[in-house]
Amino acid sequence: MEEQVEMVGKAFVDHYYHLFDNNRAALVSLYQPTSTLTFEGQQILGVDKISNKLNNLPFDQCRHVISTIDSQPSSSTGGILVFVSGCLQLQGEEHHLRFSQMFHLIPALQGSFFVQNDIFRLNYG
Amino acid sequence: MEEQVEMVGKAFVDHYYHLFDNNRAALVSLYQPTSTLTFEGQQILGVDKISNKLNNLPFDQCRHVISTIDSQPSSSTGGILVFVSGCLQLQGEEHHLRFSQMFHLIPALQGSFFVQNDIFRLNYG
Repeated sequence: MEEQVEMVGKAFVDHYYHLFDNNRAALVSLYQPTSTLTFEGQQILGVDKISNKLNNLPFDQCRHVISTIDSQPSSSTGGILVFVSGCLQLQGEEHHLRFSQMFHLIPALQGSFFVQNDIFRLNYG
Repeated sequence: MEEQVEMVGKAFVDHYYHLFDNNRAALVSLYQPTSTLTFEGQQILGVDKISNKLNNLPFDQCRHVISTIDSQPSSSTGGILVFVSGCLQLQGEEHHLRFSQMFHLIPALQGSFFVQNDIFRLNYG
C-alpha cells in the first residue's frame, strides 16, 4: 500500500511538471470544478479560474527540478496527499527559485486522479 | 466558510508550534492511532511512534517562526489542509533552518481537530 501510494505520487509529479514545463495549457485536464488552488496566498476556485491563473503567470518558459516527493494516503477513500519541494528555473534568469507545493489527489475514472487541493509557495530567504 | 477555514488553520498552527517549542511531549494529544507523519522522508505510523519521534529529535530547545499559513477545506467532511512555511531556530545555533510542513486536520469531538497527515521538510539551498 505504502509503495503504491509512493508510485502514484511520483508518477503524478512527473506528469504534472512535465505538462507545466512543456504544455501548460494541458494542466486544465488535471483539475475539476471542485478544485481549489492557493498560489502564493491567493485562493482560486474551480478548474476554469485555476487554468486561467496558471496560463497567465508572469513567466513563459520555465523548468521545474524536483528535490523531494513525500506521499501519504489521505482519509478520503483512495485519496493521496503529495508534498513536493524543488526549484523553478525561469528562462533568462540566472538564479532559480525554491518552492514547496502540495496536492490532494482524488481518484477519478479509469484509475486516474484529479487535483482537489493545490497549494504553492515560493521559499524565500 | 473560507474565513472559518483560515481561522481554524491559524489557530491550529499557533497551538501546534507553541506546544512544540514549550511542551513538546504534549503534541501527543494532537495525533491518533490512524495518523501518519513523514519527517524528512521517514514515514511514521500512529500516535505512539509519532510522539516518540518528535520527543527524540536531535535538538532540545527550539523556536518556530511562521512565515505563511495557507488553509483549504479538504474533501473529507469538515477536514482542513494547512500548509505552513517558516524557520526553525535551534538553541546555540546562529543561523536558522527554513522548513515547510503540511497538516491534514480531521474533526474530532467537541469542535477540536486531530492531525491525520503531517509532512515535514527542511528547505535546503
